[in-house]
Amino acid sequence: MKNMMLKDLVVVLLAGGKSERFWPLPHKMHMRFLGRTFLETQIENLKAIGFKSIVVVVNEDSVDELLPLGVQKIIQRGDGQGAAILSAKTEIAAKPVLILNADDVIEPELLKDMIKNIDGRNHLLVGYKVHNYFPGGYLVLNGKKIAKIVEKPGEGNEPSSYVRLVCDYFPNATTLLEYLEKVAQTETDNHYEETLSLMMEDSFDFEMVEYQSTWVPLKYPWQTLDVSNYFLQTIKKSKIAASAQIHKTVSITGPVIIEKNVRVLEFAKLVGPLYIGEGAIIGNHTLIRSSMIGKESVIGFNSDVTRSYLGQNVWLHSNYVGDSILSDGVTMGAGTILANLRLDEGDIATVVKSKRVSTMRNKLGGILGVGARVGVGSYIMPGVKIGAGSVIGAGVILQEDIAENQRCFIKQNLTIDKLPKKIESNRNTFRHKI
Amino acid sequence: MKNMMLKDLVVVLLAGGKSERFWPLPHKMHMRFLGRTFLETQIENLKAIGFKSIVVVVNEDSVDELLPLGVQKIIQRGDGQGAAILSAKTEIAAKPVLILNADDVIEPELLKDMIKNIDGRNHLLVGYKVHNYFPGGYLVLNGKKIAKIVEKPGEGNEPSSYVRLVCDYFPNATTLLEYLEKVAQTETDNHYEETLSLMMEDSFDFEMVEYQSTWVPLKYPWQTLDVSNYFLQTIKKSKIAASAQIHKTVSITGPVIIEKNVRVLEFAKLVGPLYIGEGAIIGNHTLIRSSMIGKESVIGFNSDVTRSYLGQNVWLHSNYVGDSILSDGVTMGAGTILANLRLDEGDIATVVKSKRVSTMRNKLGGILGVGARVGVGSYIMPGVKIGAGSVIGAGVILQEDIAENQRCFIKQNLTIDKLPKKIESNRNTFRHKI
Amino acid sequence: MKNMMLKDLVVVLLAGGKSERFWPLPHKMHMRFLGRTFLETQIENLKAIGFKSIVVVVNEDSVDELLPLGVQKIIQRGDGQGAAILSAKTEIAAKPVLILNADDVIEPELLKDMIKNIDGRNHLLVGYKVHNYFPGGYLVLNGKKIAKIVEKPGEGNEPSSYVRLVCDYFPNATTLLEYLEKVAQTETDNHYEETLSLMMEDSFDFEMVEYQSTWVPLKYPWQTLDVSNYFLQTIKKSKIAASAQIHKTVSITGPVIIEKNVRVLEFAKLVGPLYIGEGAIIGNHTLIRSSMIGKESVIGFNSDVTRSYLGQNVWLHSNYVGDSILSDGVTMGAGTILANLRLDEGDIATVVKSKRVSTMRNKLGGILGVGARVGVGSYIMPGVKIGAGSVIGAGVILQEDIAENQRCFIKQNLTIDKLPKKIESNRNTFRHKI
Repeated sequence: MKNMMLKDLVVVLLAGGKSERFWPLPHKMHMRFLGRTFLETQIENLKAIGFKSIVVVVNEDSVDELLPLGVQKIIQRGDGQGAAILSAKTEIAAKPVLILNADDVIEPELLKDMIKNIDGRNHLLVGYKVHNYFPGGYLVLNGKKIAKIVEKPGEGNEPSSYVRLVCDYFPNATTLLEYLEKVAQTETDNHYEETLSLMMEDSFDFEMVEYQSTWVPLKYPWQTLDVSNYFLQTIKKSKIAASAQIHKTVSITGPVIIEKNVRVLEFAKLVGPLYIGEGAIIGNHTLIRSSMIGKESVIGFNSDVTRSYLGQNVWLHSNYVGDSILSDGVTMGAGTILANLRLDEGDIATVVKSKRVSTMRNKLGGILGVGARVGVGSYIMPGVKIGAGSVIGAGVILQEDIAENQRCFIKQNLTIDKLPKKIESNRNTFRHKI
Repeated sequence: MKNMMLKDLVVVLLAGGKSERFWPLPHKMHMRFLGRTFLETQIENLKAIGFKSIVVVVNEDSVDELLPLGVQKIIQRGDGQGAAILSAKTEIAAKPVLILNADDVIEPELLKDMIKNIDGRNHLLVGYKVHNYFPGGYLVLNGKKIAKIVEKPGEGNEPSSYVRLVCDYFPNATTLLEYLEKVAQTETDNHYEETLSLMMEDSFDFEMVEYQSTWVPLKYPWQTLDVSNYFLQTIKKSKIAASAQIHKTVSITGPVIIEKNVRVLEFAKLVGPLYIGEGAIIGNHTLIRSSMIGKESVIGFNSDVTRSYLGQNVWLHSNYVGDSILSDGVTMGAGTILANLRLDEGDIATVVKSKRVSTMRNKLGGILGVGARVGVGSYIMPGVKIGAGSVIGAGVILQEDIAENQRCFIKQNLTIDKLPKKIESNRNTFRHKI
Repeated sequence: MKNMMLKDLVVVLLAGGKSERFWPLPHKMHMRFLGRTFLETQIENLKAIGFKSIVVVVNEDSVDELLPLGVQKIIQRGDGQGAAILSAKTEIAAKPVLILNADDVIEPELLKDMIKNIDGRNHLLVGYKVHNYFPGGYLVLNGKKIAKIVEKPGEGNEPSSYVRLVCDYFPNATTLLEYLEKVAQTETDNHYEETLSLMMEDSFDFEMVEYQSTWVPLKYPWQTLDVSNYFLQTIKKSKIAASAQIHKTVSITGPVIIEKNVRVLEFAKLVGPLYIGEGAIIGNHTLIRSSMIGKESVIGFNSDVTRSYLGQNVWLHSNYVGDSILSDGVTMGAGTILANLRLDEGDIATVVKSKRVSTMRNKLGGILGVGARVGVGSYIMPGVKIGAGSVIGAGVILQEDIAENQRCFIKQNLTIDKLPKKIESNRNTFRHKI
């Protein structure tokens, strides 16, 4: 592709989804990885590749004032990807356009590959090679040409090994917009997929760009852990701010990013890859492994944080947080545990929009919304979600999701009566065993 | 004041209160700070100033054989401060007298100030300058003269910024005793305050000595923490006994007093100011901050003791003890937590003599009487008090006070049945993640 | 004794008991001490003394393929020690024979003493000197000759201070076999004891070999701790495999055996005597004291293992395991505690074959069968036993034994409703206190 064309190209980043399946976490574009919001990260990656013209289609509720980045923000009108693209009509008309889903983490190499394959006339879609059945849109291929897309054909009926990943190039957006406007009149659910089908039927030339590297979608809340892990893996060597105070007894292995004014106290053990945000305090006798910890968070004495995502200003104290996601401002009392493994070691299921779904993970802890609070000595069972602002009392074994701004307390059956006989302690005789 | 007068002066220390509001702790005079009883401490401070003649008015039940200190002990007859002073009639008659409340911690400077202000004829009371309303006796002033004392005038009606603190000088105790005997015939509740009012009405000359420094009363059990903190703050540099064994891995910051034969084991973290009594054991992987720990206590593995008061022979094991008070011989099973913060972070209330009162603290843990025992994994809610000798079973969430010599157990609703299918472990596949 | 005779001597090791009172642990011969099964250990000890001919009488169910050791295995036919000896008839007929109970741990010195006392014609039994009443068979003595054995005479009626320990020498097994066969026709319960009585009545010459050293029986499951402790005490100096990885911060005191490929992580504290089997992982911030840990076990973060026996492939994570016995494959969730001391510090009782018996120990934790699993934050009360394969859920306070392959869960009484008022955090104001 000629540089001229790259200069003309408009990237449309679809970030306007409602993030409903992402409950109880904040809008996914607001999640922070390595200290930046997911949306910032996606945009910065596009800029780093060299794209000059980026349009972000957002949802009024979702991204508000989050974009002081020199990119253009469009408020999405209507639901779905088709509506999202139409919302950017003015910005893309008559130009070559690249349409990307902001929810997907992909390697920059894919976009560079796309650019190489542009010849000025062809349309490009991406085929992601899968090894097991995946409930997406399969490409029907004719050499490198795409003949058709079959949505969720069912296992055993796959027409190829390639599933479509939303990363679509059109040499002239005007054609796309015309088709979209036509389809928008119909009753179809998926206007954008329908549009692609119609264009293929009308013999537009669609070619597949093959992709086999990382693809991490951020649709369900537990996928935060996959995305977090993806970014942690990009840390190749340690970077510790000069203002960070790390006690000389602290053990650090593996690559870590430790931001400004972080304090790591006595006998802490850090196992990279790790990200610790500005001003966070990692208390003494803690174990922190393969996690992201947001700024100003405090990980109190004797906590164990393993493969987890913690937002900003999270407060822990003698907790086990394994494979868990804690939004900004979550606090937990001493001894509270986010259990992350079923006793039968089976895959963990959870409820999404009233339906029980498998998370396909056998290690998953709790998922807590902004400002959720748990008292001392409570046990949150694997995969349980707690809505923003809710309060869980002491000693609760929580097996079900809790909505926003609820309180949940336990009533114990206690027996109190007179002690039959005063107890004399023999503890001093045990002393020598200490 | 002439030295002669100081020599004649009798200090009357009022220590005969019943300490009822101090439940479930032992009589407050028996509490130990920096290794000495509160009463000893108060008397030693008076001696250090130079007072030669000290009379302690005590309660039969309260202070018994506690006074082998060369001071005179008087058993109080009748209730109230007036009765207390009258009990010392023989010892003080015709002498200048200084009357002090043994419950109050004040700076020696105040007493030195008093001495300076004595001119041989005047009476002196202390005015403690307050910045917010305080439910005490306010001084009505006329220059430095005290015209009157108004008890609890109500917020907004304060006649001055000065509240009376019981630290009263009389040039001749005989006059005081005559007034007290007269008032003692009446129905009034507060004979001593009434006596002062009558003397003012009869134009005796009362002057105020102004005081703005530390005043820590020990009336309610949680005030033990304030008094403890006061004494901890007096530790200016570390003093570690030669016979103390401190493992080389131990981290110590801030000033600490560590008495004879103390052992501090591997990976402990001590944060001063701290006092650790003779023969105590601070176990490995513990965190001890801003606390007093009585002699022969054992702080087992992995305990966190923060801003707390522990008596003698207390046994902990993997506990969190924050802003809490544990009397002699208290023991706690592993995992038991004294919660010290409400989920709404509000001020903590507790019951004193059948009335719910605010402690004015938003951080307060449990208050446990002598020999109270708590099993493993119990959670004592903020401000809850447990009577001496009581036993709390495992897994109890204790929200209410427990009287003396009670037992409190939980009855769980368990379901036991046949496991539908044998479980095979896949744990070995997780090994690499350790 | 002449060497010739030692060469002819057959040792019969009685290992065919059903191990029923040993529930829920595996057959006691399978228990592993210092990395070897109890049976292997016993046989190796006999070989080390110099015995050439060893016959092990086993139970079909119990010892199966466990004996590739050059010793002869006999399957026991019928119940009891008499039947066990008769099962070995062919192997021992006409030979001098030494009959030993495989359940008893004794010092090799006793056997060497026996050998010295053999004169070719006499029979030898062992008298174990006791200082308190013991419910066993007491020897009635006439000088060194044994006149009679009195079973359980009752306290105060003991005919001597010597109790019989099964370690019996016969110069010619044929005589013994003849008596046994005769007695086997009768209704008696204890054929072997009856046989000894008959032989004494018929004036065979029985002499006592006196024994005052270690005798540790392995009859009840909790005695595993005594046997374990016995073998731990034999570790006189540390032996650490070259391939073991021990972090430089680890504290080791007392003698330890650490086998191949063990990993001991940061800030662990090991207090010998200790045995850690091949490939085990001792996690960071752990405390391991006076225990045996089987191979491939993983002791996760912040666990405290004290005076306990752990089989192979046991998984812990932030647990307290004191005076407890965990069979192979046991796993425990974070925060689970095996309580090991009653609140009244009294001796701990437990149920054996439907009868409540005292364990004569005031420190005893849980006893868990093979593959038992406990969820997070459960508390197993002192002396409670859990059958193989059973699963205990989170937050259970277990006070009673659980049979094999059961599941036990708690049902809590939770109240969930709308939070009356949103909670704003003041935690930042607490920051300076960290």
